[in-house]
Parts: sequence; C-alpha cells; structure tokens
Amino acid sequence: MINQVKTVVIAGCTGSMGQQTVQLIQNLPGFELVGGYAPHAIPQTSDYLVTNQLAELPQADIWIDFTVPSVVFQNIKYAITHGYHPVVGTSGLSTSEMHELQTLAATKELGGLIAPNFGLSAVLLIQFAKQAAKYFPEAEVVEMHHQDKQDAPSGTAIATAKAISASRTHANDYDEIETIPGARGGKVDGVPIHSIRLPGYVAHEQVLFGGPGEALTIRQDSFDRQSFMSGVRLACQKVTDLNTLVVGLENILD
Amino acid sequence: MINQVKTVVIAGCTGSMGQQTVQLIQNLPGFELVGGYAPHAIPQTSDYLVTNQLAELPQADIWIDFTVPSVVFQNIKYAITHGYHPVVGTSGLSTSEMHELQTLAATKELGGLIAPNFGLSAVLLIQFAKQAAKYFPEAEVVEMHHQDKQDAPSGTAIATAKAISASRTHANDYDEIETIPGARGGKVDGVPIHSIRLPGYVAHEQVLFGGPGEALTIRQDSFDRQSFMSGVRLACQKVTDLNTLVVGLENILD
Amino acid sequence: MINQVKTVVIAGCTGSMGQQTVQLIQNLPGFELVGGYAPHAIPQTSDYLVTNQLAELPQADIWIDFTVPSVVFQNIKYAITHGYHPVVGTSGLSTSEMHELQTLAATKELGGLIAPNFGLSAVLLIQFAKQAAKYFPEAEVVEMHHQDKQDAPSGTAIATAKAISASRTHANDYDEIETIPGARGGKVDGVPIHSIRLPGYVAHEQVLFGGPGEALTIRQDSFDRQSFMSGVRLACQKVTDLNTLVVGLENILD
Amino acid sequence: MINQVKTVVIAGCTGSMGQQTVQLIQNLPGFELVGGYAPHAIPQTSDYLVTNQLAELPQADIWIDFTVPSVVFQNIKYAITHGYHPVVGTSGLSTSEMHELQTLAATKELGGLIAPNFGLSAVLLIQFAKQAAKYFPEAEVVEMHHQDKQDAPSGTAIATAKAISASRTHANDYDEIETIPGARGGKVDGVPIHSIRLPGYVAHEQVLFGGPGEALTIRQDSFDRQSFMSGVRLACQKVTDLNTLVVGLENILD
Repeated sequence: MINQVKTVVIAGCTGSMGQQTVQLIQNLPGFELVGGYAPHAIPQTSDYLVTNQLAELPQADIWIDFTVPSVVFQNIKYAITHGYHPVVGTSGLSTSEMHELQTLAATKELGGLIAPNFGLSAVLLIQFAKQAAKYFPEAEVVEMHHQDKQDAPSGTAIATAKAISASRTHANDYDEIETIPGARGGKVDGVPIHSIRLPGYVAHEQVLFGGPGEALTIRQDSFDRQSFMSGVRLACQKVTDLNTLVVGLENILD
Repeated sequence: MINQVKTVVIAGCTGSMGQQTVQLIQNLPGFELVGGYAPHAIPQTSDYLVTNQLAELPQADIWIDFTVPSVVFQNIKYAITHGYHPVVGTSGLSTSEMHELQTLAATKELGGLIAPNFGLSAVLLIQFAKQAAKYFPEAEVVEMHHQDKQDAPSGTAIATAKAISASRTHANDYDEIETIPGARGGKVDGVPIHSIRLPGYVAHEQVLFGGPGEALTIRQDSFDRQSFMSGVRLACQKVTDLNTLVVGLENILD
Repeated sequence: MINQVKTVVIAGCTGSMGQQTVQLIQNLPGFELVGGYAPHAIPQTSDYLVTNQLAELPQADIWIDFTVPSVVFQNIKYAITHGYHPVVGTSGLSTSEMHELQTLAATKELGGLIAPNFGLSAVLLIQFAKQAAKYFPEAEVVEMHHQDKQDAPSGTAIATAKAISASRTHANDYDEIETIPGARGGKVDGVPIHSIRLPGYVAHEQVLFGGPGEALTIRQDSFDRQSFMSGVRLACQKVTDLNTLVVGLENILD
Repeated sequence: MINQVKTVVIAGCTGSMGQQTVQLIQNLPGFELVGGYAPHAIPQTSDYLVTNQLAELPQADIWIDFTVPSVVFQNIKYAITHGYHPVVGTSGLSTSEMHELQTLAATKELGGLIAPNFGLSAVLLIQFAKQAAKYFPEAEVVEMHHQDKQDAPSGTAIATAKAISASRTHANDYDEIETIPGARGGKVDGVPIHSIRLPGYVAHEQVLFGGPGEALTIRQDSFDRQSFMSGVRLACQKVTDLNTLVVGLENILD
C-alpha cells in the first residue's frame, strides 16, 4: 500500500495554538501544510498560502481549526461542505451547532473530530477515571492551576467529575460536618472538586479513589501548551479514517 | 429471574487470608459458606463444615483457595474435576501446571480464575499503564514498601514494567551517565524500576509517564491486606459466568 | 556520668493509647514503668502496680496521661503538685486550665509537656510550613482522612493554616470566581483548606506552596496510631530536662 | 531611617541568567542597575553602562555574577578588592579558590554570597531534610528531570543525601536482595537516590522519610528558570548586611 501524503490547511494559523500547529505539520512525515487562514492580511513570506478569504484556501484532506468562537461554526460548516476532514480545537460550538455539523458530516459521510481538550494526559485521566469508578465509586477531584486562572473549578475537572458520576453505580452519601464552609469542596454530580490556585503551577489534575484498605490516584500535569500538539498529531493521523464527526479525543483512542 | 444463592468452600480457611475470606463470604448477600478445608483438625464450633480431607468437603459452586504452593495444584485439580469453579489466590503454580489446569477446565467447560494479585488498585494500575504506554511510551516505575520486604523490585512492579514494554511500540533509548551506579534504577524489558524501602510504608506503586510538555502518573496504595477482599468478592461474583480458567483479575474486569 | 533509670507512671493505662504506651515504656532502655492508673479495678497480673486511686500511685519521674477530658485537669494538677514531670496527650484542657497548670509548674520549677499531637510527621509538617511561609506566602492545605471522620477540616489542618498565616508577611488576595460553591475550599486566616474523605485513607496532610516558576510541597501520612509512640518516646527523653510546662511537641524539637 | 537605593552591577548581563537578572533589578524597588559586564562589545542602547572591561564598571554596592567558570574567580577577586558585595551564581569555583575569596572578604570585612543553587524551593527542601533526618533517619531521595539531562543523579540530589547523612545519628542498614541490579538506587553516604528521566518533566526532587506508622515527604518542583530569581532577589536584599562571604543560600535564610 502506498501511504499518500495528506494535505492540511490551518484556520487560525497566526494565533498561539495555530503557530505551534504550523510547526507541527511542517515537521510531521506524511503531512503537508498547503494553506493557512488568518483574519488579517499577513506578509506572504511563507511556503504555503495564507489568506483571509475561505474561498481562496486550497483543497486539502484536513482542516485544522484554532480560531475563535464567533467564526468556528461557519468555518467548520464550510470545511465539511467542501470535503475537508475537520479537526476542531476551537471552543464555543453550541450543542445545536454540533448536532447540525454532525448531521451535515453524516450526509457527506465525512469523518472529523471536535476536541474540547487535546492534552493526551488529561484525556487519558478522564478515561481511566471512568473505568476506575466502576470499582471505586468513592472519588474526589483536586485540580491545581496558576493563580491567574479566573474561574474554579476547571472545565476538565468538571468533565472528570461528570464522567465519574456517570460511570459509577452508586453515589457517595456523606453527612460530615463542615466546620469551615467550603472545606469539603464543590460538588458536581455528587463528586467533590477541590481547586487550588497558586503561582508557579501551570495546569494539573488529580483524581483520588478510595476503597477498603487501598487507594488509587491518577494525576496529570500540563507543563506547557506544547503538550496539546501530541493530541493534534494523533487526530490528524486518525481523522481521515473516521466516517462520522466524533466529539472528544478519548473517543478515537484505541 | 431468580438469583440463586451460590455456595462456597474455602481451602485454607484458617490462614490469615482464609479467615478474612470466611468473614467476607459470610457477610456477602447471595453467597453461602458451606465448607472449609484446613490442614489440621480444628474445633467444630463453626456453622459450616471444616475438614482436613478433600473428599469430605460438600459440593459447592465455588472453591476459593488460599493455601500453600505445595498443595495448590492438587487442590485445584480436585476442584475442577469435581465441578467447583476455582478462585485461586495461592501462589506457586508453574506455567505447565497452569496449562494442565486450563486444559482440564476446558474439557469440563468450567470457568475459574487464578489471580496473582487480588488488589483492585494494583490490577487497575497495570491495566491503565498498558493503555497509557501506547500514547506515552516513556515510563518509569517507582514502588515503595516497608523495610522488611526482602526482595526488590516487587512482583507487581516487574509485572507493570513488562506490561508497559509489551504495550508500547518503541522503547526508551537512554545514554545518560550514572555517576552513582544504580541511580537510574533496575531495568525490566527496558523500563526502569526504582524500589524504595522505608519503615511506615505498606505497599505502594507509582508509574510515571512523560511526553512533550506533560506528564501522567498512576499511583496505588495498599494500606491493609483487607484490600484484597474487594478483588475476591468481584471474582466470586463473576466466576460462575466464566467458561474458561482465566489468569489475572484484570481479565475479568469490564 | 551515670544515666539513672527514669521511672514512669501511666494514667489511662488500659485505654488504646495507654496500652501502646505501656508497651513502649516497658521496651524503652533507661525507663521503668512503675505504676498505672485506670478508672476500674483490673486484674493484678502485671509487673507494675495498677490502681484507680491517685494517692496509691508510686512516686516517679514522669507522669504520662492518656485519660479523658473530664479528669485530665485534676490528674495533671495532682502530678505537678507531687513532683511528677507530666507528658500529656489527653485533649480537653481549656486555655485557663493550661495557664493555671503552667503557673503551678513554674512555682515548682518543674518541666512538662502538653502535646495536642504526638505524631512527629505532623509536627514537623507544621514547623516546616511555618518556615516556608516566610519565602512562599502563597499556600494551600489539603488533608485526606477516612470517610468516617465526622468533621472537616481536621484540627491539624486548621493548626497548619494558622501557623502559615502567622508566619507570612502578606496574604493571598484572590478574586477568582467559584462557579461551583466550595471549589476553592474553606479559608482559615486566609489560607484555603481542602478536606478529602475517602475509604482506605487513614490520616494524611499536604501543604502546597507556590512561587514564580516553582512549587514546594510538604506531606505527612499517618498510617497507624503506632506513629504517635515516636513522639511520646521523644517527650519522655526530654521532659525531665525541661523547667517549664511546654505546650506543643514542636517546641521541644532541636 | 532612610532606605538608600542600592546600586548593582551584573557580570554576565547578556547571558540567559544575566538577562533575567537585569529585568529583576530594573524592576526591584530600592535597587538600581548601574552597570553590566559582558565579554563582547554590545550596542549601547541600554540605560546602564555595559562594558567588557572590569575597570570601566562603575562603583556599586552589589556585584551579581552569572558568568562562566573560567573567569568567575578573577571577577569575584576584583569585586571584593574594590568593595562590591558579591552575589555569585556562577559555578566552577574550587574549594581553595573559595577559601582565598573568603579570606580576602574577611580582611576587607565585606559580606557576600556564593550560591550553587538560587532556587528557594530546592534550598528549603535541603534545609527541611536536614531537620527531619534527626527524627526520621530512614530516608530516600527521588529526583525527576527531563530526559536530556546527561548525568544522574542531579547535584541537588547528591547535596540532599549528604545533608541527610550528616544530620542523622544512625544510618540505614539494609540487607535486601536486588533481583534486578540498580532497583534500590545509587547510594550517597548511605542514602539511596533514584533518578528518573522523562520528557515533559523539568526539574523536581522528593525526599521520602519513613518511621513507625508514618511517613513524611518533601517535594520541590522547578517549572521554570524564572524560579531562581526569587533567590537572587533575597540575596540582594540581605548581602549588604552580611560581613563574611557566605556559601549557600540556605545560610542566609532566617
């Protein structure tokens, strides 16, 4: 079998994630970057076409999208309509928009991936937490982020708690007394989440499981945004073999 | 459907694991302890038969074995021949003995389980390590045990390293210099294992995975031998639905 | 110099801590157990006097007290008055009672120790946290206990938070948004505490410090009540050299 | 009292640490950067003098040195002779060179600091390890670094092991069997060190202490070279109050 080179366009190629993705694809054997989409005209010194007009983008196998919530829906609709396999890291799609895109992809029999999180360690953590919760229904989540993170808990921690709750067959039923309000954390679907905000930390999450006489802990550390690139690479390697628009990187892991 | 009570005999019912198993089965809804096998005659004050003659044991659905290496093979051969579903926690079966028992079970179309480790957290750790190694081939194992443990590394750590090595598609290739011999650990199939021996600790294991910009860590703590009972309970609940003699608790997890 | 054997009486010698202390002293070179005080008459099979009358206790160098809140004040008052060096692990003394005992000890020029916590790892954790907070004022406390612990946070966690707050020269001033109430923990003197309650866990505490580009974590694990005995032994070895009634094991560490 | 602004020169101001130090001093209230020393002539666009001639540097209170082993001794000799308080982060001084500099500083009654490590979390870890080893003589060190680190164990881990060994009053005496050579780590002064090398990790160290029924763990994480700046700042704030040439940041902590 001949492995043909797969062609790629990157929407949002001048943003922080986009620039890293450009580097990734340019160095990934078997892939070729053929076009970039960016909102503003940029100097054409690059060895691939960059444009601010969707219609000027060259045809390609894969459409990677790291743009902004306000344009992502139109972008992906365009991509699917024109036969690009979308790999979407942009947030902001509503549930109804996702359904519309999934229906459109089904009509076209075109595979793609929408991934709220491209960090492999975070995705595996959630997957393992789901499996562990069947045997260790008692679980709590601790997440640590840098102090500049404005909201608590993190989206990944909430997703983890929901995954645990959906997987376990019975729920904790605590009746302990909080002498200091908040000490027992914030509960999402019955799973306590504890959010730590400290300088120095980047983005880290732990799930603690306990059972009679034993404990199981899963932890992931994101030290660097570079970590997302492993997930993007994996998505590019698998997306052309998909025939539906999948949501969640965990759903394309073996 | 009527859930019939399943009957159980326990071989080695007076040993430390055996006594805990007696307590477990006597308190487990849907199960009834009907007999115990012990090498020495013991006072018949119990509400189930205890004997030192295999032939005197009552027929039952399940045969739990926590005896000693010198008798386990004969015990399980007897159990399978007589139609008991074996759940074996005794160590010491050779590979050829296991094969003989598996063949015998296949002939009788009788399911059973041989489990080197009944600790659910340890079994899940190995399972997760296997899955993670596909995406994070770079891994090291750290295990901590009480200082009285005579050998290093632990059997579970070796099993973990082998599972990682079998699962990953490429191996580490380190060429760093050890200025203090042993600093980089002992390698099993290319996976470094680091063994810590300290008072206070019981039995703990960590697997550390690293990739570009991120890390994933899986840890299990066994605080108490009581932890094995969760695995024994799970085995009892599933063994009568098996139709082969399975090796490894991880292979009956969902 | 001749090291004279030091004599010891144990009040509460039949309780759970008392029994462990009996074992400790009977096996500690340089110490001799000469009497025990217990509320109920007990069989006199032991090789030391046990009585339920304070006045019947033999004179000794050290009075170890593991009794109950309702009698500890009278016990220690009696001990100091009669020249025993008290080592007190019983809780329940009020601040005014402590002051009265300290004044009495000062008058008699007699040293002693009242220790809310005899766990050396917990005491060192608080001491280190105090030191670290001078250089890392941003800190959070996470404590893990078995699910049967009724209150949250633990007393040691509260003591740790207070020690950090007293030691640091400026306080956190967070304005992050809790989308799930309680996620950011319960604050004691401005230090967030997160309490985890899971089966399997015993008693564990972590302090996390963060600064620009780095983090420092101190963790202690109490696996077993036996851990308190290291602190009791240390107290016995030092108490006869003290000349005031000290509160807190950390204050007699070198 | 009037707090006079302290003036600073930075030797090695164009290197990676030097540039960060320039930024630090320029933003540190109470300090003024007045000169930089760099091996090569550089464009004079800066608001402080940069030269490649020691003799051209302006007089100042503090001399920060982040240069290279081949010049550090001459630099610091020059600095002390001319009345600058040296703060030295450059490695490579031999013991005899250090002694000569200390003698020179003593003659001039001039304080200074030579710091092999400016990371506050690492320095505190060693300090706490020293204290803990008095009460928990059984200890092991685990350090994790990125896979590109060529040598194992790390210098900080070796320094930690030596500090533990010097502080504790008795040593471990293990006789366990290594079935895989290296599993029990590399021993420095009787303290096992375990070195982990994985992608993603930056520079991290743990000390594990164990005693009867309990454990104490101290961990530090260096996520970013920026972390050294906290130590440099502290050194600048204290160095003009010193009257000897101190070696080790830990020796100027309160």
